[in-house]
This record gives sequence, C-alpha cells and structure tokens, in this order.
Amino acid sequence: MTLHRYRSHTCGALTAGDAGNNVRLSGWVHRVRDHGGLLFIDLRDHYGITQCVIDPDSAAFAAAEKVRSEWVLRIDGEVKLRDAAAVNPNIPTGTIEVFIREIEVLSSAKELPLPVFGDADYPEDIRLKYRFLDLRREKLHANIVKRTKIISAMRAGMGEAGFTEFSTPILTASSPEGARDFLVPSRIHPGKFFALPQAPQQYKQLLMVAGFDRYFQVAPCFRDEDPRADRLPGEFYQLDLEMSFVTQEDIWSTVEPVMTEVFEKFADGKRVTRGWPRIPYDTAIRKYGSDKPDLRNPIEIQGVTEHFAGSGFKVFANQIEADPKVEVWAIPAKNKAGAEPIGRAFCDRMNAWAQGEGQPGLGYIFFKDGQGSGPIAKNIGEERTAALKAQLGLDDGDAVFFVAGRPDKFYKFAGEARTKVGTDLGLVDTEQYALCWIVDFPFYEWSEEEKRLDFAHNPFSMPQGGIEGLNGPDPLSLKAYQYDAVCNGYEIASGSIRNQEPETMVKAFELTGKSREEVEEQFGGLYRAFQYGAPPHGGAAFGIDRIVMLLCGVANLREITAFPMNQQAEDLLMGAPSPASAKQLRELSVRINVQNS
Amino acid sequence: MTLHRYRSHTCGALTAGDAGNNVRLSGWVHRVRDHGGLLFIDLRDHYGITQCVIDPDSAAFAAAEKVRSEWVLRIDGEVKLRDAAAVNPNIPTGTIEVFIREIEVLSSAKELPLPVFGDADYPEDIRLKYRFLDLRREKLHANIVKRTKIISAMRAGMGEAGFTEFSTPILTASSPEGARDFLVPSRIHPGKFFALPQAPQQYKQLLMVAGFDRYFQVAPCFRDEDPRADRLPGEFYQLDLEMSFVTQEDIWSTVEPVMTEVFEKFADGKRVTRGWPRIPYDTAIRKYGSDKPDLRNPIEIQGVTEHFAGSGFKVFANQIEADPKVEVWAIPAKNKAGAEPIGRAFCDRMNAWAQGEGQPGLGYIFFKDGQGSGPIAKNIGEERTAALKAQLGLDDGDAVFFVAGRPDKFYKFAGEARTKVGTDLGLVDTEQYALCWIVDFPFYEWSEEEKRLDFAHNPFSMPQGGIEGLNGPDPLSLKAYQYDAVCNGYEIASGSIRNQEPETMVKAFELTGKSREEVEEQFGGLYRAFQYGAPPHGGAAFGIDRIVMLLCGVANLREITAFPMNQQAEDLLMGAPSPASAKQLRELSVRINVQNS
Repeated sequence: MTLHRYRSHTCGALTAGDAGNNVRLSGWVHRVRDHGGLLFIDLRDHYGITQCVIDPDSAAFAAAEKVRSEWVLRIDGEVKLRDAAAVNPNIPTGTIEVFIREIEVLSSAKELPLPVFGDADYPEDIRLKYRFLDLRREKLHANIVKRTKIISAMRAGMGEAGFTEFSTPILTASSPEGARDFLVPSRIHPGKFFALPQAPQQYKQLLMVAGFDRYFQVAPCFRDEDPRADRLPGEFYQLDLEMSFVTQEDIWSTVEPVMTEVFEKFADGKRVTRGWPRIPYDTAIRKYGSDKPDLRNPIEIQGVTEHFAGSGFKVFANQIEADPKVEVWAIPAKNKAGAEPIGRAFCDRMNAWAQGEGQPGLGYIFFKDGQGSGPIAKNIGEERTAALKAQLGLDDGDAVFFVAGRPDKFYKFAGEARTKVGTDLGLVDTEQYALCWIVDFPFYEWSEEEKRLDFAHNPFSMPQGGIEGLNGPDPLSLKAYQYDAVCNGYEIASGSIRNQEPETMVKAFELTGKSREEVEEQFGGLYRAFQYGAPPHGGAAFGIDRIVMLLCGVANLREITAFPMNQQAEDLLMGAPSPASAKQLRELSVRINVQNS
Repeated sequence: MTLHRYRSHTCGALTAGDAGNNVRLSGWVHRVRDHGGLLFIDLRDHYGITQCVIDPDSAAFAAAEKVRSEWVLRIDGEVKLRDAAAVNPNIPTGTIEVFIREIEVLSSAKELPLPVFGDADYPEDIRLKYRFLDLRREKLHANIVKRTKIISAMRAGMGEAGFTEFSTPILTASSPEGARDFLVPSRIHPGKFFALPQAPQQYKQLLMVAGFDRYFQVAPCFRDEDPRADRLPGEFYQLDLEMSFVTQEDIWSTVEPVMTEVFEKFADGKRVTRGWPRIPYDTAIRKYGSDKPDLRNPIEIQGVTEHFAGSGFKVFANQIEADPKVEVWAIPAKNKAGAEPIGRAFCDRMNAWAQGEGQPGLGYIFFKDGQGSGPIAKNIGEERTAALKAQLGLDDGDAVFFVAGRPDKFYKFAGEARTKVGTDLGLVDTEQYALCWIVDFPFYEWSEEEKRLDFAHNPFSMPQGGIEGLNGPDPLSLKAYQYDAVCNGYEIASGSIRNQEPETMVKAFELTGKSREEVEEQFGGLYRAFQYGAPPHGGAAFGIDRIVMLLCGVANLREITAFPMNQQAEDLLMGAPSPASAKQLRELSVRINVQNS
C-alpha cells in the first residue's frame, strides 16, 4: 500500500483498533521527552495529539534527537497499544502510541519567542507579532474554532428560519448618523471618498423595499472609534437581519428560537433562557436600574418612597417633600439559604463602595432577631421598618439598600448597586445564560450638548403612534418600536420596526432639527425608495463578537479573534497601517497633512 | 380567528385546497386589469403572485380603483377556485383567486421611473439609481436569489468536505504584489494607511501555519482597477480555500466534487463535466491555443509542420527552413453530421476574419469528392494533402485551417481561430458546463518592460523541484505547482501549492530582483511565520461572481449583483463616492490634492 505523501491519518484519529498498522502522520512537535533512553515525541495537528516513541536502536534515532518543539515532521511507524499504566483517558488517541520507523523534517523552527505547549501568560505585543504561534496554543485555537462553529450555527439557524444571506457593499457612502466612518479615497473621482459601512442598515432596508422578504448577513461592520477591551479597533461582525410585513412580535418570535438554539448548543451545559422575558424599557430601569439587566442576579429594585415620606429619616423625607419627582428605591438583598447572615460589616462595606463611586453613601437596613437594624431603621421606626420588610419579603439575615433622588439621575447607580450587592453576596447564578428582550425604548432623548431632541437609538425606527405621535405634545415621552436583546448584562442585539413612511421620516428628523432637504440629501437612497411602495419591515442586528465572548467565557475580544489589531489600532503581524508611496498618494489625489499634536 | 397584522399567507402559497377560506395577503400591485367591470389586481411578493378580484358592488371597490402599480397593499378576502378557462398552470397559485373584501394601502408609489412588470430594457443609470425597483423585476430578482443559493451551496459543500469558514481582516496591510490597493487613512496613526485586501492570501497561509487544517471563506476582495464588463469596480467575492499537508492532487480531488455538485445543482439541466480533465499548461496552449480552453468546442489543434517542410507552399516552407522554432498548426474543422459541407465560401470568410484581426490571413484546405481543395492543397500536392487529411481524420465536407510561425507569437491567434471556426460551424455544445484543470503553469515569465524575470502567477507558489529548480540553468522553463480551473473558456479558479520554505521563498524573489531584505520587509508576516514550523500547504480561490454569471447565463456582472457600482465606479443609489467634510479630513491627517488632468 502506498501511503499518502504526508499522512495516512490525522493526529487525532488513531485508536486501539489501529494497533499493528503502519501509519504516516504529519504535524508539529508539541513536546519531546526523554524517558530512560526512549524518546517520546508528541505530534500535534488541528485534530489532536499522538504520542510517538523511538528507541536508541532505531535508524531514525539520530534524526529524532535533533527535533525541537514546533518543528513540522512526517513520521512513519507502527501503531502499538500502550501499557495499561501509560493510557491517557483524556485524549482520543490515549490508548495507543506510534513506534517511529522514519522521520522527515518538513520544516524546522527557530527558537520560539513564545511557547505553544503550556498556558503561561505572554505579553500581548509578542502574542500579536507571533500570532501564528499564539494561535497554535490550545485555548486560543479552541476559541477560534468555537467562534467559527457559532457563526456556522447562526447561518444554519437563519437558513432554516427562511432567511437568505445577502452580501451588501463594503465600499459605500458615508452615513451622517452614528459613529466615525473609515474613508477610502476614490482614485477615479479625485477629492471624493467611499466610506466603509458602520452597518448594512440602509442596504438591508433597500433589500426589503426591493421585495426580498427575509434577509440576513454575517456582516463586517466598520467604525473608526478608539479601541476598548470590548471593542476592537476597526472591524466587527454582526448577524444582521431584516423581515418584511412583520410586527415586532414576529421578529422576536422568529429570531429568539434561532438564538436560543445557538446558545444552547455552545453553552457547555449552562442553562439558557427559554422564552425570553420581554421587559419594557421603563420597567427595566425601575427594576434593574439598567436597560441591560443581568437577570442572573435575582435582585429586583422596588419603589419605597411612601415609607420615607414624612418619616424620621430626614435626609430622604426632606428631599421627598421638596420635589415631587424624588423617589426612594430599595435594593433588597434576600440572602442565600444557609448563608452567613448579612450584618453591619457587609452593609458598611457597601456604603464605603458607594462613597468610592462618588455617591454620598448607600443607606441600609439589615434584619436580625425579627428586627431591622442600622441608622435608617432607627430613624424611621419599627412600624415603617416592618412595612418595608413585609413589602420586600425579607427575613432575618437579609438586608436592604436605598437610593433616593430623581430617578433619571440615580437609576444607573441603583443598577450598579444591585450588581455589586448581588455579586458580593454570591447571588448571581453564573451557571446560566439569562436572556431577555428590552422593548419600548424611548424614541427621542434630550441632547444637553446640542440643546435639542436627538434620536435615542436608531433614526430609522418607527415611533409608536406613527406621525400622530410625532405631532403630539411631548415627543420625549414617545416610545419607539425599538428593542434590544440582553444576555447576562450585555446588550447582544438591537433592532426595530422601521419608519418606512417618507412623511413620517421627514417629520421625525425635523424634530431633531434636520430639514426635509437635509434628509433627502443625506438619506437619499432610502428616502427615494420609500416613495415607490415600501413594505412595513423591521429587523435586528446581533453582535457576533460579544456573543462569542460570552460563550467562550472570555473578557477580551482578542481571545476570540484570529488576527486582531492591538489597542493602538495596529496589526503587528502584517505591519499595518503603513506609509503609502508617493505614487499611491498621487493616484488617490491626497496629500499627507500631519500636524504637530 | 384573528389574522396576522399583514398576512395569513404569502402571495405564492394559496392553492385549490384553500378554496373557501378567508385569507389576508400583503404585497405589491404587480398589475391592475379591468375586465368587464371586474378589477383584477395581481398581488406580488418575494414568494409569488396571487390574482385578486373585486366587483363594483364591493364596499372596497372605491379603494381598489385608486391603486396603481407597485403600491403596497394588504388585502383580505375569500379564496375561490378559478373557472377552468382562467386557470394559469404556469404559477403555483394559478388555480385560485382571492375575492377582495377589504383593502389597506400600506404604501403608495409615485409614478415609476422604470416599470417592474414586463422586461423592457432600461438605461443603466436609471436602473442603478432606482435599483430597489429594478431588483423587483422578475429576472434580476431571480438572478440575485440564485446567487445567494449558489453561495449557500458552496458553503454547505465546503463544510461537508471538512473545511471551516474563517473571516480574515479587511483593514490590513498593503501587499506590494498584484493589483492596485484601496487605501484607508489611519486616524490614530497620521500619515499611515490600511489597505483593503486584494485577497486573503497571506492570512489564509498564516492560518495554515497556525495549525488550522482546512480553511475556506466567502471572501470579499478589493482591487482598485478600472471597471470592465466582467470586473466590477471595487469589490468582488472569492470562494477562498487552503489545506495543509497536501499535494496538488489532494486539492483537486477535494474541491472538484464540491464544485461539480454546485454546478450540477444550478445547471438547469445542462450537462456538467464529471472528472475534470487535468491538462498541462503546455498541452493546453498546443491543443487549444489558450490556457482557458473552451472544451465545449470539440476542435483540437494539431502540429503539422512536417507536412509543410520542404513543400511547394513556399510561404510556410521558407519560414520553416529559416527558423527551426517555426511550426505550423492545424485547426481541423470536422463538420457536424448531416450539416452543409464546408466550402470555399466559409473558408474565405474565415480568411477575411483573420485579416480583420490583423493577421496576414488564414490558410485552409477543404475536402470534397475525396480531395483537398484551395490554394494550399494545390501547392503542397495530393500526397501531402492526403497525409494531412489522414492525420487529422477529416472527410469530405470538412476543412482545416493553418497558422504558422513561432508558437509563442501565434498561439493566441490560433486559439481565437479555433473558437471562431467552432462557433461559426455550430460545433460548440452550449448545453453543457465543460470544466477542466489547467496544471503545471510556468513559474516565471520574462518581463519585457522590466527586462527581468517576473512571477507568471502567484509569487507564493512552490516551484516544481523546489530550491534546486531555482538554482537550475533555465528558470523560464521551470513549472510551478500552480493550476487554474476553467469553465467554458473562462478561468473560474486559480491556486497553487505554496512555497513555505523561507530560503526557497527568498531565492524565488531574488531571481525577480528583490533582495532578502525587501522580502523580509514586504512579506514580513509570512516570512517570519515560515521560520517557526510551516506545514506544506496549498489552496485555491474560485471566482464567485464569474461562476454565478455562468450559471445565470448572463454576460454582465451587474445582472448578478444587488447593488453594483456603475462603469464610472459610482454608486448612484447611495451617492458614493462623495466629498468628505473638513473635519473628517483633518481627523485623518489628509488633504485633497486634485490636479488638473
């Protein structure tokens, strides 16, 4: 039998059933060990690791002695069963080893700037410059493979749900809304620029107007924003989708099963929410102090203003009396069954944490011996303390924390306090992916900077109530058919029913100070399209990178991206960005204009 | 039963089984017809067309009278069987119609700049500016859907063949080889630029060095070249793939079944080659006068120099005597069975065509009454004519055409003559997709402009014979492990086994005049990677746009692209490219430098 030039099996394929066979393997030298004269070479490829052995009597021993980590070898040899004591049940090839008859060095390796074997931490610049080595390391390799599988599962799910994948242009027009564009000088049109798409928003809406019913795309998106740990410079990927002739309910009920299945498939046994709660934005703010609530945290904030109005706790009582918009919110800390009772020490620690966050403090009551304790309990008295305890369903060993003021000013802090209390008490169930929809977002927000209304989210969303709503007296109270999906406290998707009525679109922009002419000019393609029969439509975009991060359990995008830039927006492997030649600049009709900074 | 807000069925769903049911449809008004008082509204969506009917007694008639083509309607009504005479067997809904009870106008339409119904030609600038209307038209809509299905089938096939889809960076480094780059100014690094990838070549090779075994990607690629009918300005898509530990045979035998299946699935009944012939480059040039032979044309060129050496046809005989490199090639025209015999008129037409192409003419012999006719036959005499006839297997009614000179100068013309003769005689079987591999391409070619060797194809390919080959006496005779796939005369893929040995890579570039330092600088990432254990690897890239064009039977890329730019590299729908603001230019540290041209 002639063997293949490089391999008869991959390094993950051989099992006990192959014993006695002559095989050929190719791969990287993962590790070389010397045991009593015998040399053990662990040979690794994408599929696994196979232990190869050679004894000093072998003709190939001289060659074997020379090999070093990460050399690429072809090895011919015979498969043998390992001694029972040497069996490794953790790998598929753990019952066999290959006795080396012949070695061919396919590629040698210089001294390694970072090891592939083992999981020692290495500085990021080394990891990025030698990314081809870093990517061989077990964990990163597995993360990248998992990423590809997640995306593949998303594609399959969307296909099964009747969606068609389209590619939309990458060299396109600058969109005046949103983040900063990457620009591409046009050679053929001197002085003009293409922009890379921040999202395929306008194109996907145009596809709906063009009569394609269910669009999706694993879409590269580009925003020229400063890098953060959870935002790579440059490009990121969205699972972008759009549907025609739908209400927002249709979108939720279509996409939710697809994404639930993706999560379940890659959750490694963690629980995944089935039937995502749909939480109105206002409710989310009041219950969780956030529009990105972490529902793994069981704490729900409650309004308790009435218990403090006219009470002996003057700090709160005076505020309530002075301003009818003032409220007091309670963050009830229902202790875990069997846990150490929450006492003054914990509460004081929370109070100190709040002060560290720039707050005056975090008022509290803790319960023991059937009674509330702490300064607030003293001030408001037993009856009000008991009423609070009853409303919040608390018991001995539990506590409650309070924030007071105008909710629009403190809700974010209340949300942070909820997270802090829940986390520090170990109430957050980390063995799950808790998913929900946040719905009914405000349509507008007030821009202090510009002293005018601005779109709270997507300017292309339909306001609830349509044009009548826009003509109403209080645009800031308007809701949009706008929603997010949230997982474990992170926004993983955003979407809306679109405003496909040209007059409603113009009106919506007019309230933000844009004239009809500006709308026509800046959103010409879409505005024009809506004049010629536009179906009701809507969609969403899921942040693929964020979802992969959650499912891989990592906190840095570079752990799930094959070739990321560094925090300075440089590709250290390929050496980008780099200077352009004079000829290139001349062809593109641009000149460098570097100012001292 | 409450109906959905917009539809209980799509416009392609209703059949006889639904008769008697109340339904709700939404879609575009495809056509309105008035038949004896009754109004017929053909309602269209992505899935089909449903005939809707209303009579003047209906309460909704006033509304129905107002609707115009391309308005978007919701229609409620009852499904009824059509009269036998009115049944349309060509559409799935052809046995029913919906009697309209209620109409809601979801969106009206202004007067249409181009009609959706019918297939009249419209000027391209109108089609592109109103692409959302153009895309509703039957043929373009179907082409775009077919495109998405072809790509989806490619993905599925590659997945089944064990490949994993990766995304490689789009903001990357300029590659000094190949076409012109699109550049993107870096905001964070003033005076530096990213480049959009011309292909993910280096990244896919780095993935192999990183130990991922089988990569593919439906990859957007960017080349700033001037537009042509078969090349859109800007971006195009490749099915890009790479494998480790393989010979070129492995690549062919892995990819060929995937692509054959894709072709068969979308060939609309045309035959597709099973078992693609593997034709060495030199053979292709000699047999077909082209490295992109159209194998639907049965004509095979043959060398017939010996029959002319020393013959009475002095034009050829003198050339042969003067220069040992001169050859005479025959283009035998074996006539179709039962066809009109090929006579002097046809042969003279070919001769005139050749003169129109700037050639001195196209010599010929045609056969009738058991004899060769025409000037050449006369000059070389009966015996040589009979020997030619025997070698070429020709009969009465057939003909043969001749080209003479140095093959490297005339082979292209010979190929064109083969195509012309085959086409004009109707020998080309248009009911098939004829696929083949062209293999063993030359490694180098001579650049007359630069007076030095240049890479004939991919500089990253492995020369046959490795570094020994490069050290040999005649680099121009070196072959590469480099191959193309060809369909019906078009190159649809190109690929190679890569040169993964750093010293061989340096040597290969040195012969083109690049120093080791230049290689290190310009291909730093790859060159560095090859120092640390690089597996033998290779791959290919299939031109998706070209394949879709072939399978859709169209000759212009804009017929298979949803949002193409025009021939002036402008997106007329979105208005790109467009001027940048002063603020944007300042942030990017560039200035416009338009010179009078």
